[in-house]
Amino acid sequence: MPGSPDSTAEGLIEQRRGKLHPAVARTREAVRATLAELPQGTTVLVACSGGTDSLALAAATAFEAPKLGLRAGAVVVDHGLQADSAHIAEIAAEQCRSVGLDPVLVRAVEVGTAGGPEGAARTARYDALRDAADELGADVVLLAHTRDDQAETVLLGLGRGSGARSLAGMAAAVGLLRRPFLEVPRATTAAACIASGLRPWHDPHNDDPQYVRVRVRHEVLPVLEQALGPGVVEALARTAGLLRADADALDQLAADVAETALSRADRQVRCDVGVLVEEPAAIRTRVLRQAALEAGCRATDLTAGHVAAVDALVTDWRGQRWIDLPQGIRAVRRGGFIAFGPDVTG
Amino acid sequence: MPGSPDSTAEGLIEQRRGKLHPAVARTREAVRATLAELPQGTTVLVACSGGTDSLALAAATAFEAPKLGLRAGAVVVDHGLQADSAHIAEIAAEQCRSVGLDPVLVRAVEVGTAGGPEGAARTARYDALRDAADELGADVVLLAHTRDDQAETVLLGLGRGSGARSLAGMAAAVGLLRRPFLEVPRATTAAACIASGLRPWHDPHNDDPQYVRVRVRHEVLPVLEQALGPGVVEALARTAGLLRADADALDQLAADVAETALSRADRQVRCDVGVLVEEPAAIRTRVLRQAALEAGCRATDLTAGHVAAVDALVTDWRGQRWIDLPQGIRAVRRGGFIAFGPDVTG
Repeated sequence: MPGSPDSTAEGLIEQRRGKLHPAVARTREAVRATLAELPQGTTVLVACSGGTDSLALAAATAFEAPKLGLRAGAVVVDHGLQADSAHIAEIAAEQCRSVGLDPVLVRAVEVGTAGGPEGAARTARYDALRDAADELGADVVLLAHTRDDQAETVLLGLGRGSGARSLAGMAAAVGLLRRPFLEVPRATTAAACIASGLRPWHDPHNDDPQYVRVRVRHEVLPVLEQALGPGVVEALARTAGLLRADADALDQLAADVAETALSRADRQVRCDVGVLVEEPAAIRTRVLRQAALEAGCRATDLTAGHVAAVDALVTDWRGQRWIDLPQGIRAVRRGGFIAFGPDVTG
Repeated sequence: MPGSPDSTAEGLIEQRRGKLHPAVARTREAVRATLAELPQGTTVLVACSGGTDSLALAAATAFEAPKLGLRAGAVVVDHGLQADSAHIAEIAAEQCRSVGLDPVLVRAVEVGTAGGPEGAARTARYDALRDAADELGADVVLLAHTRDDQAETVLLGLGRGSGARSLAGMAAAVGLLRRPFLEVPRATTAAACIASGLRPWHDPHNDDPQYVRVRVRHEVLPVLEQALGPGVVEALARTAGLLRADADALDQLAADVAETALSRADRQVRCDVGVLVEEPAAIRTRVLRQAALEAGCRATDLTAGHVAAVDALVTDWRGQRWIDLPQGIRAVRRGGFIAFGPDVTG
């Protein structure tokens, strides 16, 4: 752990003495841990916006990758959401080149509207990152999300109330994406930029309270820290990791049970009550949810309340009538099965 | 679901027309669902402070219990934390009698200091409730915690960051305690009191910001609702229920694995790596945590970080030295086992 990653004045003095600033050391260490798992000769791309976090990531990756026999480039995505976005993207690309990344691509994308402004921008960005990785033969794309981003993601998930998965934050590794900074505080990336003489671009969107994430960052987290004491960000990020592991384990166990419990025929999904009743609630509700989704319910419409009502057909059977689910799907108990479908009560 | 539980003026008009106020109906329905599971002749006790929630609970229980062949009394705990606490307790007892509960006990307790002011009061209160239940031959004690209390408990758990269990809120049923109002909003209990002409006592502690819970209630929750939109309280309470089910399932699975994986000899707890390595992280870390606790670590000192370091001895074995754990316990890998104890490296 670095002693005082954000006491940058002290850090600069140390640097003049020839010592590495602890914030720079911390970012490099985090990147090294992620890169160490890749085979030599792999190409990695840094997704860089020119902001503090991704600029620190670009610098740390440019330093560490060659030592591990890796090739490191960057992709800058120009979302076209501001008049001068092409110029900002070019500055970011120039900074990536100046720290030693090569090749550096700029990709202009068109942001749609599906999923709200933040969701649409994310979809466009991730598509562009995957395309760039394809084109350059890169196996890994590095994202600069920090521990603070992770904490914010957990708080955003609280509003959904759909259990462990909605509080599990972002994964450190999923597909070709890697997030080396998930345990690194934002203060550390900022200090690393200053210590390295990098000039990050400050995205005005990061202060625009029309975005939920901005409200969580500037309004919720400070109040939460005041009420619960310091260490809340760290606790939230730790919570994400623990709940992700829980959700992974339970989803896998439920998938195994579903193999045995579920069958399909005649536009119906049938679930064997005898198999389900032996399982704990956490598994039962996951299997029943899967059955409802397979029968045609949309994930965004199917609530924990719907699933609980179907579960009562398993655990508290008193001859209830069917349960109405979204998209006109019904669940009904017939003997030793729960049948899910559009016309199971016909 | 009641249409508008807090529109009490409308409710009073309905009541004059002979219709039941929806808030009263909701509190009775919640109590009935809890009481319906008890055998006839059972004695239930309402834990009543004289505040809004427990007064509504007292009235609903007095109404529902006789219809199900149950006997219903109350216990008022006088914490002695205010000069006039004996008088306040006597008024609460009188209100319990007036709604028809019998017998009604007042119990004065001495609040210690262990666990902070809230923790110490809770310990004293629950001890007194259990003693009163013993004395009166009651099998069940009803507590009036609402959906809002549950949401606050989840937020309080966020600061701990120790995973699903710390976010699982309060159980609807544990030991002799039952919480019928865990899905009932506080606004509903308040409306029920008004509609029933009950005059709840307002505890000044509920507004004292020296208590973390008060800060969460009056500072954190409003900001969170403003940022994430309405429905946050409901989402938090639902999260608690889902994570409790997850934690129950995983704790049980881990206990089953621990039966096979753990053995004890010579002041050591040994954990079989071959058994553990087949399990997902959520199970492995729970078994390793149990081993560390059995070896002598205190639960409050053993962090997720400690457990993760020990887990690396299982999943990422590169000949590391031992891991230092709290209370002078060490974990070290020896061949196919992890050994936990005070002198495993001797």
